[in-house]
Amino acid sequence: MVILPKNSCRTCTLTNYQTVGLIGKPEHAGANATLSSLLVYLHKKGCRVLVEETIAKQFQDKDMTPCTLEEIGQQADLAIVVGGDGKMLGAARVLAEFDIDVVGVNRGNLGFLTDLDPEDYETQLDGIFEGKSQLEERFILEVEVYQGGELKSSNKAVNEVVLHHSKVAHMMEFEVYIDDIFAFSQRSDGLIVATPTGSTAYSLSGGGAILTPNLDAVTLVPMFPHTLSARPIVVDASSVITMKISPENADSFQVSCDSHVVLTVLAGDKITIRKNPGKLSLVHPEDYNYFKVLRSKLGWGSKLY
Amino acid sequence: MVILPKNSCRTCTLTNYQTVGLIGKPEHAGANATLSSLLVYLHKKGCRVLVEETIAKQFQDKDMTPCTLEEIGQQADLAIVVGGDGKMLGAARVLAEFDIDVVGVNRGNLGFLTDLDPEDYETQLDGIFEGKSQLEERFILEVEVYQGGELKSSNKAVNEVVLHHSKVAHMMEFEVYIDDIFAFSQRSDGLIVATPTGSTAYSLSGGGAILTPNLDAVTLVPMFPHTLSARPIVVDASSVITMKISPENADSFQVSCDSHVVLTVLAGDKITIRKNPGKLSLVHPEDYNYFKVLRSKLGWGSKLY
Amino acid sequence: MVILPKNSCRTCTLTNYQTVGLIGKPEHAGANATLSSLLVYLHKKGCRVLVEETIAKQFQDKDMTPCTLEEIGQQADLAIVVGGDGKMLGAARVLAEFDIDVVGVNRGNLGFLTDLDPEDYETQLDGIFEGKSQLEERFILEVEVYQGGELKSSNKAVNEVVLHHSKVAHMMEFEVYIDDIFAFSQRSDGLIVATPTGSTAYSLSGGGAILTPNLDAVTLVPMFPHTLSARPIVVDASSVITMKISPENADSFQVSCDSHVVLTVLAGDKITIRKNPGKLSLVHPEDYNYFKVLRSKLGWGSKLY
Amino acid sequence: MVILPKNSCRTCTLTNYQTVGLIGKPEHAGANATLSSLLVYLHKKGCRVLVEETIAKQFQDKDMTPCTLEEIGQQADLAIVVGGDGKMLGAARVLAEFDIDVVGVNRGNLGFLTDLDPEDYETQLDGIFEGKSQLEERFILEVEVYQGGELKSSNKAVNEVVLHHSKVAHMMEFEVYIDDIFAFSQRSDGLIVATPTGSTAYSLSGGGAILTPNLDAVTLVPMFPHTLSARPIVVDASSVITMKISPENADSFQVSCDSHVVLTVLAGDKITIRKNPGKLSLVHPEDYNYFKVLRSKLGWGSKLY
Repeated sequence: MVILPKNSCRTCTLTNYQTVGLIGKPEHAGANATLSSLLVYLHKKGCRVLVEETIAKQFQDKDMTPCTLEEIGQQADLAIVVGGDGKMLGAARVLAEFDIDVVGVNRGNLGFLTDLDPEDYETQLDGIFEGKSQLEERFILEVEVYQGGELKSSNKAVNEVVLHHSKVAHMMEFEVYIDDIFAFSQRSDGLIVATPTGSTAYSLSGGGAILTPNLDAVTLVPMFPHTLSARPIVVDASSVITMKISPENADSFQVSCDSHVVLTVLAGDKITIRKNPGKLSLVHPEDYNYFKVLRSKLGWGSKLY
Repeated sequence: MVILPKNSCRTCTLTNYQTVGLIGKPEHAGANATLSSLLVYLHKKGCRVLVEETIAKQFQDKDMTPCTLEEIGQQADLAIVVGGDGKMLGAARVLAEFDIDVVGVNRGNLGFLTDLDPEDYETQLDGIFEGKSQLEERFILEVEVYQGGELKSSNKAVNEVVLHHSKVAHMMEFEVYIDDIFAFSQRSDGLIVATPTGSTAYSLSGGGAILTPNLDAVTLVPMFPHTLSARPIVVDASSVITMKISPENADSFQVSCDSHVVLTVLAGDKITIRKNPGKLSLVHPEDYNYFKVLRSKLGWGSKLY
Repeated sequence: MVILPKNSCRTCTLTNYQTVGLIGKPEHAGANATLSSLLVYLHKKGCRVLVEETIAKQFQDKDMTPCTLEEIGQQADLAIVVGGDGKMLGAARVLAEFDIDVVGVNRGNLGFLTDLDPEDYETQLDGIFEGKSQLEERFILEVEVYQGGELKSSNKAVNEVVLHHSKVAHMMEFEVYIDDIFAFSQRSDGLIVATPTGSTAYSLSGGGAILTPNLDAVTLVPMFPHTLSARPIVVDASSVITMKISPENADSFQVSCDSHVVLTVLAGDKITIRKNPGKLSLVHPEDYNYFKVLRSKLGWGSKLY
Repeated sequence: MVILPKNSCRTCTLTNYQTVGLIGKPEHAGANATLSSLLVYLHKKGCRVLVEETIAKQFQDKDMTPCTLEEIGQQADLAIVVGGDGKMLGAARVLAEFDIDVVGVNRGNLGFLTDLDPEDYETQLDGIFEGKSQLEERFILEVEVYQGGELKSSNKAVNEVVLHHSKVAHMMEFEVYIDDIFAFSQRSDGLIVATPTGSTAYSLSGGGAILTPNLDAVTLVPMFPHTLSARPIVVDASSVITMKISPENADSFQVSCDSHVVLTVLAGDKITIRKNPGKLSLVHPEDYNYFKVLRSKLGWGSKLY
């Protein structure tokens, strides 16, 4: 496969998306139907279509190019993710490195990040192709695990990085530093470090506040803290958050990214979390409204009068 | 070893404890020192001393009988547990089946259940031997896991039974029935079912209320619930609590008792939790005060004037 | 008006309610319609109908006897309250003193206590008249305010007694005793003491646990506590709860019962809260299900499969 | 009194504070002692001393100029506030309009904002006079109440603006707009809108997250919300927050600033909250550490190893 140069005319408002990547849940009837219909839709628009390889075999007889996620990031102007927030998070961890817009069609449960209705996406996508859209950049986190000063492993997270014991309901002991200044120690099941994007996910279940997406901040939410005075704290996203695991801890621990990628952590290890230079460029329909999503997904109060 | 009949004169107020069991953390310097000194103390009192077998080897040259926990339960009038709450909970899960009083000497962190000060226990123990004490019965829970109607495993808990995903930060889906009446379904990391004794432990870290020990009630505390309207609920301890795991769940789950014993649970399984007929008979020094323990352990407010 | 002896045949299952009291929101169109239709319904049943005096004038031309709430309590076998939970609470504070069953028709917002549907109450009431019903006793609280040892004022509460500053968002300082044992001191905006009935009302908004109605327990929920370690605590309903207001407090305070009755409290005053000997005898339709009410009113999770 | 031009050499590191304002709790023995000693200290430094008029009479025989807070703001380079956080907040609401540094000597309870120890402030103040200090700008809020489009009243807040019912434990109904976009409606006792500075005060008692002082964000914390899904939300401090009071509310309401200033609000009124152009310029000793303050004031965890 030849790596083509990116569409150089991204700012034109009409048909600015010439190469489009399709990403989706494999072997999911609903997602398949939407992907098939999107393939027809995109060909009508005259787009070149790249299909992520794990689902490409289902469309072998169609006019499309099977690709890795990275290749989609390099070559496409727009990625359409068909699935739930989990699928979107997985794609976003990779695509955030590239200069590509991303939009989601909801084929999952909640769909905080997947705006488009699978039964009725055409009008909204038409608008997006005509530049009638809202582009929103969401920052993502990178986490590194150090052992004795050596980098052992690293990864990225769109929603949250969670440090926790490798067993449920087991306490661990660690210290937290913000920009190398000691902030607090904690005995707890772990700590959630969430972006604004992740503030409506696991962090919210754990009692964290919602952070609107335009905030350059992360929230630290203790999990089952033993100290009753422990509280969530919101810090500047430009801060480097360091967690030092007590060498006294006999057990093994984990860092998980978006409840998906898992890194192993041992007593005495040091974990740093900071903003990744990449950005997830979410493209929303023109009438997108963050608070409306909160209301419909979280059951917040509707207008009174 | 001959199983002796129990002291038949338990209600006499003087030296009613003739056979005393010693239980403790093995290979813990502080606990060892206390156990050695207790052995001397109990011999002075004229008591027959049974020592739990895992620590008995440290006292091989002394006048004592190595025993299992069950044998201590059968033969002794009083068990003295030297350690933290973890040690006490482990002993209590076994001893609750027997007619035996239990007192703790604190060699751990918090010591909610271990009243006596290791540096100064003699006066308090003297009082307890003279009947100057408070006897408090704490109920315990039993949990059973059923697969297709067949009992698969069971265990007991003094603090709490926790149903959770076998991986941290992973959601599960289940239904809760109270006395066979459907109460609620939940998507969450799991559910804590705590006794009043356990209400100051994991349940409290998860946002549950404190239940005073004399209440005949258990509290159900959701862990990281996805539904924001989920709240802790307190129900009658005579109720049978049933949790049905959705057969849709693809993963494996666990039931843990006092963060110690772990039972495996699979999709479609049914878990029942009810009061065990046994009782933990905690004997406290005469001046024991539950609220004082809460204040000193949890940092509640002291008297103002 | 002559005070008639109560129907002496309350235990017969057919037409056991011979005298029925009607209580409702005055000048509320919806409540009026329901009350008018109830009057017709009850006459058809052959019942003698007492109407609470504040709404009686609307039915002057009808065959009914205007009464005080107390007279309804003395003479009627059943009281039907048409309105929201506020109306029910007001009636219940009085009726709990008497041997009378109480049922509610919901003409308010939430309707935790008012089971019957105003559009379709006849079948359910027919069942209740035929004894096809569930009778549930709910205990109520009494609160007394003492100044220098002298009783200054007192009242009753079905949901909760709240001690608070007379100004919103102002801190006060007090001590709490349970059965004359000092439990904790607190700097906060106040303290909620709620019954199981009230545990789904103000107490729940303040982070308290839900207590099922059959529990003989009350929950103490701090309001905006300054100490971060303050937590809700559930105690035996047979306990006497005493709150001593610091004589250092310069301001004035209030005790409110069900957010309705307000008693004045000054620095140095002592407040006691205990179970009232009266009981609210709620009669529910045969198919009443407490958890179903929780699910429909609080948005708890429905059955999964 | 002549209004002198400000010291034009504020950036010089030595003796840059030539005119110093003293502000304090009147008739408070501890504060008086500190103020007297500060007067001597400042004269030794060669400073011109302005004393806030409510405390000036206590120092009539001394070499100082009685002034209003505004005059101190206009003329002084540094204001020293002796008292608790309440005194500091009151001074800050006025001084934030002016180009003046502010430091506090703690003569109150918590002292989040008053860094200096009254028993040992000299070394720290010496450092501050030598420019060995940290200067931190804290933004403040302004609130406006509109009736039928007309501005009715307005004020400023350093910690928080609270909208609430004029009676404790009474619900109100309102809508919240962020930058004129409808965000959510709420039935609750009210809403706290707190700055990072206020995030460790009332907002924290109400379950809000801590916001580090460098964040340009405000947190909205519901008070006793009736909807169980209501959660604290953190929004950009550049947003305009508008609250519309339901015209259906029959009662009267209040907006309070820092629990001190109270504005009346009626049904149908509109309230806007935005960042004030003024800034509170807090000067801290060189070794000031925000997290250390959190740990010592809130009981957060200390270093482990």
